Amino acid sequence: MQNFNFYNPTRIVFGADTIAALSDLVPPTARVLILFGGASAEKTGTLTEVRKALGQRAVQEFGGIEPNPSFETLMRAVAQVRSEKIDFLLAVGGGSVIDGTKFVAAAAHHQGDPWDIMLTGGASVSGALPFGTVLTLPATGSEMNNGSVITHKASHTKLPFSSAHVYPQFSVLDPTKTYTLPVKQVANGVVDAFVHIVEQYLTYPVQALPQDRFAEGLLQTLVEIAPQVLAEPTDYASRSNLMWTATLALNGLIGAGVPQDWATHMIGHELTALYDIDHARTLAIVLPALLHVQRDSKRAKLLQYGQRVWGISSGSDDARIDAAIAATRTFFESVGIPTRLSAYGLGAQAINDVLAQLEAHGMTALGEHGDVNLARSRTILETAL
Amino acid sequence: MQNFNFYNPTRIVFGADTIAALSDLVPPTARVLILFGGASAEKTGTLTEVRKALGQRAVQEFGGIEPNPSFETLMRAVAQVRSEKIDFLLAVGGGSVIDGTKFVAAAAHHQGDPWDIMLTGGASVSGALPFGTVLTLPATGSEMNNGSVITHKASHTKLPFSSAHVYPQFSVLDPTKTYTLPVKQVANGVVDAFVHIVEQYLTYPVQALPQDRFAEGLLQTLVEIAPQVLAEPTDYASRSNLMWTATLALNGLIGAGVPQDWATHMIGHELTALYDIDHARTLAIVLPALLHVQRDSKRAKLLQYGQRVWGISSGSDDARIDAAIAATRTFFESVGIPTRLSAYGLGAQAINDVLAQLEAHGMTALGEHGDVNLARSRTILETAL
Repeated sequence: MQNFNFYNPTRIVFGADTIAALSDLVPPTARVLILFGGASAEKTGTLTEVRKALGQRAVQEFGGIEPNPSFETLMRAVAQVRSEKIDFLLAVGGGSVIDGTKFVAAAAHHQGDPWDIMLTGGASVSGALPFGTVLTLPATGSEMNNGSVITHKASHTKLPFSSAHVYPQFSVLDPTKTYTLPVKQVANGVVDAFVHIVEQYLTYPVQALPQDRFAEGLLQTLVEIAPQVLAEPTDYASRSNLMWTATLALNGLIGAGVPQDWATHMIGHELTALYDIDHARTLAIVLPALLHVQRDSKRAKLLQYGQRVWGISSGSDDARIDAAIAATRTFFESVGIPTRLSAYGLGAQAINDVLAQLEAHGMTALGEHGDVNLARSRTILETAL
Repeated sequence: MQNFNFYNPTRIVFGADTIAALSDLVPPTARVLILFGGASAEKTGTLTEVRKALGQRAVQEFGGIEPNPSFETLMRAVAQVRSEKIDFLLAVGGGSVIDGTKFVAAAAHHQGDPWDIMLTGGASVSGALPFGTVLTLPATGSEMNNGSVITHKASHTKLPFSSAHVYPQFSVLDPTKTYTLPVKQVANGVVDAFVHIVEQYLTYPVQALPQDRFAEGLLQTLVEIAPQVLAEPTDYASRSNLMWTATLALNGLIGAGVPQDWATHMIGHELTALYDIDHARTLAIVLPALLHVQRDSKRAKLLQYGQRVWGISSGSDDARIDAAIAATRTFFESVGIPTRLSAYGLGAQAINDVLAQLEAHGMTALGEHGDVNLARSRTILETAL
């Protein structure tokens, strides 16, 4: 096990009918800005519930945070925070709204150009407004971590930042709030969580036994619940398991003390920034190809993954690895997510464009060994054609 | 999955040579009281490392916190805290020292008789001194939770308390600090952690899939590492896995959203209070007997436990349950811990005495269904003879 430092102060209030708890969770004298995305937050009644729970507090709203939240949009929220002397933010939505809220929280306190937050990966953040979240879309884990990904639309640049100052104070996770989600978004959530887990697990062994077991348990859970999650939107058992699993997938726990490989995310970000493909779908394209290309350095963990998650225990090592990668691809396809660039209408030219962006963003030594250079990324993308 | 509220703000600094981090973790102007147990903290050099890391801070020490820390001893520490205007506590030791430090932290701020803290189970705690820990004995999980068990020696009373005010601010977990532990204490730690996990897992199914997988993963880890942990005291891999597993066993995570059954602990506490049997050994006596007596209400989870932790998949349900309970008993015995009252020289009279204490302490409706009344506790103890 590698040395690690684990800290996560976010309170999770989990279960049906928990939005009312906001009345206790948000400071009674707060000047609150509710941040949300599209019209669904209103249509589903979630915003009404939130407003009711906030009672007599001074509340303003900022809607229109888009998927892959943009710097341009969020800076309008920052202006509102400053002019209206907002002192507490409440994100109501999925990962995009929460990521955006983290940026607003940090930018509101930032001296100078807030894009510096992204260029420094969060190192320049010295404080942030306190905030909480009401999660409506299980997927990214942003509700219980200190990371955020923001897109600069003008330059097609999608970058991550993290800071100890942007842990949510609390997150309310009510699984019934997922009942009205489009199936496509739920499928994206399953894949996003799955890939988060894999990126903290499928590297090389470091004798971190509980971390491995936890990661495998979360993957097994996703595999077990996926059919029910998609087929029966109002099934509380599967929706609650998806919601908590997606949170646990990226709250720092399974990644503490182990090597990590975020190459799939970094390559995927460029596909989203260039072609507006849903985040989770870019991961489904890249991951199986990456596992194939990196099979030698990931050999021991690929065999363990095949055995423990998919029950693959016979055949040569290479045959078992092939089967494990095939099972991964089949799982993504089974929830309706294509895993080939060609299925999204992309070909050789796209690969050149993605590589140019990776180079422009300094993404030239990715992976747990830093060996995913531009040539390796090209091979991965060619494998994904 | 049941609704839950999860919050755990303790920072974990994990790994070899991490005690030096105290220089950053403890406030620079703090007036520190180091609390510890016996002579081993000095002999092993741990106290020297701690003092060095604390540098120029004003530091005092309070040694002699015994296993099953006593109210009587701890009140002397409270007097020192008050008279010396201590504002930060640092526990250096295992669960007893940490539990004791939690009590001192709460009692130092308490108005009136501090034993009230125990009589109210912590409800009367309205504040506490901040404190951190340096863990030297993996077992209780106290380093990352807000619970504590204190013994009133004069009345042979061992009671738990918990409070949101007594989470450690940080805990330093250096697995090399366990290398010098007596084998008996390490074996106790394995069993203590094992039983903590079982008590949050082996109840009845509530469709909490990640919690089940996490609990099973921790149990599998303990089973896997136990031989190496006992045979090779300086094996970093197994010691680090034991340390992190014991912490994860009782930091609130696997118990969030599931029923719990602490009957084994409550009955075990009386055995310790009356006969001074090591805490973990009392658990090893009670648990197999309790599982046998409660086999009907725990049937589904006993089968799952047998299958997933012990690989028991053939035979009738009753045969599989018998095998799972036998495997549990064999595991405890394999680390050198007897699982029968008779092995500790106790017989029928002891059962009467324990029942009298359970009644005196109001422990008359234990277990996940509250059905472990005095008669049921008697049956459990008779099964453990």
